[in-house]
Amino acid sequence: MGNRLGAQSMRFPGRPRIYSTASIVGPKEGEGPLGGEFDQVLPDYLADQKTAEQAERQYLELAVKLAADKAHLTVDDLDLFLAGDLLNQIVSASFTARTVGRPFIGLYSACATSAAGLGLAAALVEGGFAGKVLTAASSHYQTAERQYRYPIEFNIQRKPTSQWTVTGAGAFVVGRGTMGPAITEATFGRVLDLGCKDPNDLGSAMAPAAFDTIQQHLADTNRQPAEYDLILTGDLSRVGTTMLYELCRQGNLDLTGRHQDAGVLIYGAEQGSNAGGSGCACSAVTLAGPIFRRLQAGELQRVMLVATGALFSPLSYQQGDSIPGVAQAVTIERA
Amino acid sequence: MGNRLGAQSMRFPGRPRIYSTASIVGPKEGEGPLGGEFDQVLPDYLADQKTAEQAERQYLELAVKLAADKAHLTVDDLDLFLAGDLLNQIVSASFTARTVGRPFIGLYSACATSAAGLGLAAALVEGGFAGKVLTAASSHYQTAERQYRYPIEFNIQRKPTSQWTVTGAGAFVVGRGTMGPAITEATFGRVLDLGCKDPNDLGSAMAPAAFDTIQQHLADTNRQPAEYDLILTGDLSRVGTTMLYELCRQGNLDLTGRHQDAGVLIYGAEQGSNAGGSGCACSAVTLAGPIFRRLQAGELQRVMLVATGALFSPLSYQQGDSIPGVAQAVTIERA
Repeated sequence: MGNRLGAQSMRFPGRPRIYSTASIVGPKEGEGPLGGEFDQVLPDYLADQKTAEQAERQYLELAVKLAADKAHLTVDDLDLFLAGDLLNQIVSASFTARTVGRPFIGLYSACATSAAGLGLAAALVEGGFAGKVLTAASSHYQTAERQYRYPIEFNIQRKPTSQWTVTGAGAFVVGRGTMGPAITEATFGRVLDLGCKDPNDLGSAMAPAAFDTIQQHLADTNRQPAEYDLILTGDLSRVGTTMLYELCRQGNLDLTGRHQDAGVLIYGAEQGSNAGGSGCACSAVTLAGPIFRRLQAGELQRVMLVATGALFSPLSYQQGDSIPGVAQAVTIERA
Repeated sequence: MGNRLGAQSMRFPGRPRIYSTASIVGPKEGEGPLGGEFDQVLPDYLADQKTAEQAERQYLELAVKLAADKAHLTVDDLDLFLAGDLLNQIVSASFTARTVGRPFIGLYSACATSAAGLGLAAALVEGGFAGKVLTAASSHYQTAERQYRYPIEFNIQRKPTSQWTVTGAGAFVVGRGTMGPAITEATFGRVLDLGCKDPNDLGSAMAPAAFDTIQQHLADTNRQPAEYDLILTGDLSRVGTTMLYELCRQGNLDLTGRHQDAGVLIYGAEQGSNAGGSGCACSAVTLAGPIFRRLQAGELQRVMLVATGALFSPLSYQQGDSIPGVAQAVTIERA
């Protein structure tokens, strides 16, 4: 079992590289604290499309093209496309795959898709099954509201624990080589369900999974939190982060000074995002934009991305089921 | 690129094995021509659950437990669970993952999920990233009708080109070893869209993808159709199979005597399934049940499974988008 690591992780000794990233966000994300660090801020939600769903697809298509361009590749150079999103039947990813025109594996890990895609991409490159893999994830405020809550035209009042779905797409080209940050490990998470039933508080539903994956990753790699410059959770936001810290306190896991949450970072307090950001794009664009820049600049040497997802549907919620969570993690190291 | 094969395929020289399979189907499938070759026929659609969605989950949970049992494994012996289904946010797979309790990667390839899961499982075992992988797929007539068409209570008349979603779940345990049929290659397909817009004729929407993947697989492996005892497409059914044969005729590809379609095999003409079967379970249970038995018995030496999926959502259809298709293929060889 050459590349198994502990009970739940994989290692990639060949150090598959992230050649390039692309981060495309919407107007609200552009106005946020990280706004200047994304590749592109689109001025409107619809991106010249007729529907929000088609717009999300447009964001994703722009991101995958830009990631390929930045790696000086055409799509024909890519061996595989791994992508996912939140929409029913992941239509954003599937329709984008039609444009990409390369072998496609659709992923559904809800907002944990970014790390699931990066981990799988790294494994497939490490194993020699693919030379270059494109992986991407998207989300869109209006499509998510329509699907999970109410169409935005209803103007429903949001709860304090609600999160704001990030409009955007992040894309990554992963391959063999010596240039760019390396993906060195992946820890795919277990699905945990502590019985949360409130779709307006997904942070709390995901926090146990985040804690479980972080703890398992540290056990498998035999590392302490201090050995990471950053442990970036996907989209727990303020409410979920508070619960993660409580679980850490109970479990004697000290993340002090190491942990940040992409859902907390992406919007300013004045932006009215309630508990913070969420959506597949939340961790994807934060990693692809600001975090990747810091890795390239040497400001960060080792990052654990712990993308978090709530694995429910509006129908499962209506049928009285609770909301399971999952957290997928990858280690990204500079050079 | 040690394990690349041609332009679009992967090879698994370590010959990861299918240790065991499980096939659980509903009453209609039990009454069909393959009925006696499934592990279990449940007598009703609801499987003692309150809703059809919870029933689909129950079918899937029974299948994964049975597959593990048949391999003399407990879930704790499994390194990874790869699964998917047709429901929004793949809740059947995600909720089953909660029960399985092992690291989970959710897949969405529509009805091509079985082969996507088997191909990925084989790659992860071949690369040493996992010792034993459980992969599974499910579908359910009532949940699919509710989601894609109309609730069955409406009793809408079906079109001749319509397919009947298979109620059932197929599961597979893949790992290193020397026992059981081996997965030797995978060809992940490109997403193709020839502009079909009729959700009552998904066979036609998927046929171009099936042709493309079969042709690419044969080119990559440098084989002729006659070198396979069986080329099993997932769920083209009668209408899609006719179109596949027309594409083969135009492309000078002769599948005579080699090709069968799981959607055609699974129901008898008298069962009123119109064009035939469909759904993630269609190829999954046909492979896990009858085809796997024939591989074990030596009646089949080499099988190409070409699972086919229509990557649309009811919303994408309502917004006027056409229906893209994908086909995922794996080669399975006896001993």
